[in-house]
Amino acid sequence: MELLKQRIVKDGTLREGNVIKVDSFLNHQIDIDLLNEIGKEFKARFASEKIDKILTIEASGIAIAVIAAQHFRVPVVFAKKTDSKNLDENTYESSVYSYTKDKTYTIRVSKRYLNEGENILIIDDFLANGKAAEGLIDIIDKAKCNTVGVGIVIEKGFQKGGDKIRKQGIKLESLAIVESINNGEIVFR
Amino acid sequence: MELLKQRIVKDGTLREGNVIKVDSFLNHQIDIDLLNEIGKEFKARFASEKIDKILTIEASGIAIAVIAAQHFRVPVVFAKKTDSKNLDENTYESSVYSYTKDKTYTIRVSKRYLNEGENILIIDDFLANGKAAEGLIDIIDKAKCNTVGVGIVIEKGFQKGGDKIRKQGIKLESLAIVESINNGEIVFR
Repeated sequence: MELLKQRIVKDGTLREGNVIKVDSFLNHQIDIDLLNEIGKEFKARFASEKIDKILTIEASGIAIAVIAAQHFRVPVVFAKKTDSKNLDENTYESSVYSYTKDKTYTIRVSKRYLNEGENILIIDDFLANGKAAEGLIDIIDKAKCNTVGVGIVIEKGFQKGGDKIRKQGIKLESLAIVESINNGEIVFR
Repeated sequence: MELLKQRIVKDGTLREGNVIKVDSFLNHQIDIDLLNEIGKEFKARFASEKIDKILTIEASGIAIAVIAAQHFRVPVVFAKKTDSKNLDENTYESSVYSYTKDKTYTIRVSKRYLNEGENILIIDDFLANGKAAEGLIDIIDKAKCNTVGVGIVIEKGFQKGGDKIRKQGIKLESLAIVESINNGEIVFR
């Protein structure tokens, strides 16, 4: 997606450890017009699929998922990372290791919001090692739903997550794939 | 907002400790069409105000804020609750006590996304004791921005948050105010 790549080059910044910071427009401050174009693009890429629900994970996936959902006209469910007194006791769970935060946490979705046989599209902001996506796929499997595909805004192509998901035969659509970071410059696949 | 109140009565459930669960349409599974009506309503209620940005807090405020932002045509910034390697070191901070989770946490907004003099509308899903809203107002003050108003989907009118904010002279618009919970029935103000 050309508009997105241009924006990453213009406003993204690089940090130690191959961190691509896009918090000026994607995951801290949010450019709503760009998000809307991203939502349209996801719809175009999954136009031939039957999708009943979009599944994402708090927090930064939520904004992207709900704007995209307007184009799919389906509900969004977001997996919760934190224990809350208000969360159902009856949940599907999976363990996810976060490299960014260097800890393992449990993600949960109430059993009431994933019904057997539903076709689920996963949407998230980043895909690097793929741990969050794997956790969501695990939850979809536990709910006996179908993972129709995974839509990612920025994939770090030099990390393993994307290939692992593709090898499972799951349709993965990443709107920008960063192939490498070369002397402080982002090279797209 | 009549549509919202009807939905709360139809699909909301009550839990011990005056907890109103609306996770089937607002903060776990999300009904996008309802959210869009909520966004329109916020725009109508703050139509006369000049608003530069919407500020919310992760996680459940994000969905509401970004859909509302489409009607205001402004960016969204969401305060972060968790430490992340990817967060700017240069942040405005405030401490917030959560009754739901029974702990105090630090909320943070990068200094780059609140510029002196900007007019900020706070949007969140719930207002009960008002601790999260107070934390956001504190951050807006620290950034020398103006709190134009606070837009809340569901206010628990029997708790203190709403009155505290109104007494400060801040325009607070709650789309549904629960006055009391009476023998398992929700009474709106």
